[in-house]
Amino acid sequence: MAVQVRGERSRRSILEAAASVFDERGYDAASTTEILARSGLTRGALYHHFPSKEAIAAALVAAQSEALVVPEQPMKLQAVVDLTLEYARRLRTDPVLRASVRLTVEQSSFAHPGRTPYQQAADAILGLLRAAERQGETLPGVDLDEVTQFVVGAFTGVQLMSQVYCGRQDLMERVSTMWRLLLPGIATPGLLARLRTTLPPPEAGAAGEARE
Amino acid sequence: MAVQVRGERSRRSILEAAASVFDERGYDAASTTEILARSGLTRGALYHHFPSKEAIAAALVAAQSEALVVPEQPMKLQAVVDLTLEYARRLRTDPVLRASVRLTVEQSSFAHPGRTPYQQAADAILGLLRAAERQGETLPGVDLDEVTQFVVGAFTGVQLMSQVYCGRQDLMERVSTMWRLLLPGIATPGLLARLRTTLPPPEAGAAGEARE
Repeated sequence: MAVQVRGERSRRSILEAAASVFDERGYDAASTTEILARSGLTRGALYHHFPSKEAIAAALVAAQSEALVVPEQPMKLQAVVDLTLEYARRLRTDPVLRASVRLTVEQSSFAHPGRTPYQQAADAILGLLRAAERQGETLPGVDLDEVTQFVVGAFTGVQLMSQVYCGRQDLMERVSTMWRLLLPGIATPGLLARLRTTLPPPEAGAAGEARE
Repeated sequence: MAVQVRGERSRRSILEAAASVFDERGYDAASTTEILARSGLTRGALYHHFPSKEAIAAALVAAQSEALVVPEQPMKLQAVVDLTLEYARRLRTDPVLRASVRLTVEQSSFAHPGRTPYQQAADAILGLLRAAERQGETLPGVDLDEVTQFVVGAFTGVQLMSQVYCGRQDLMERVSTMWRLLLPGIATPGLLARLRTTLPPPEAGAAGEARE
């Protein structure tokens, strides 16, 4: 058991070290030598967990889906908004998630993750939007597939622009803006007034509990 | 004069060759040797126009602003929509623009173009939105700066997602969707019914004349 915990800890050390290297240099310029130096582990320990640089990148990309936390919320449109806000919050604070997004957005010699990360986000959002529709939260005639695809694409670009402008410092505000512009075309007027487009303070809501 | 024309033509050959190499390999993996081979020019001709790989990349990024064609339109909101649609159309057909966008979106050892391309797009859009507001086309209380920043970010992500999903084949439809979702929160109801979210057929409108 102690061995397993140690193994998990060294796996996480490698991912964190790799994330910081990929986030700084991109896939092609990153080297396993630098990843090793930052993790403080031996080459043997690295290859025990990951046979190659590509395997580390694949594990990082897979970590993106863990950040898609579906919040417990009676109002399903609120859950969609909170999902994106919580993802944005993690993107600001978690280097593993940041590296994962960079690997997804950039083309490189890394066998590209392709649609998978976009599709996972789209599945989570579409599921919540359908639940919202069943509960009568959405306006009649809204095309949920279109909204989903647009939200995933728009979020991707908004976080990229926030990164270029200010290292993602204004990311939460930019995601709030997205929802203030989109929700009037999605939510029924009665619900609209009750939807938050910012995260609740940690002590007040479920979002705090969803954090690690 | 003949010399100038020949010079301009070889400069364009280099940019097109470089665009295809950068678009395939990204900045770091691209080599001037491969750019030369594709352009069919001599190394002397290359260095006559560009002292370095970085200088070629800078010229490509600068080409992005040329794709920001402001259409002649009495309705300024229509001009904003058409600007993005025309940009999307060029992105699908012009490898120089595609390479330029890739250089902007990806981090690399290329001294990064940073905000400039985003800012140029934002300036063009904000100018048109302000004109739209003066003409009474926009709803009261719309924050034009917020809309501008969101449109530039959303467009960036939408084209990226379209590229990953299908090599930008559905880009025009995705940009149309963006406007169908956003315009109801921006345009006055009377105008809304008259706005197109697709390009007019080439023979019918001014967009055709704006093409090179």
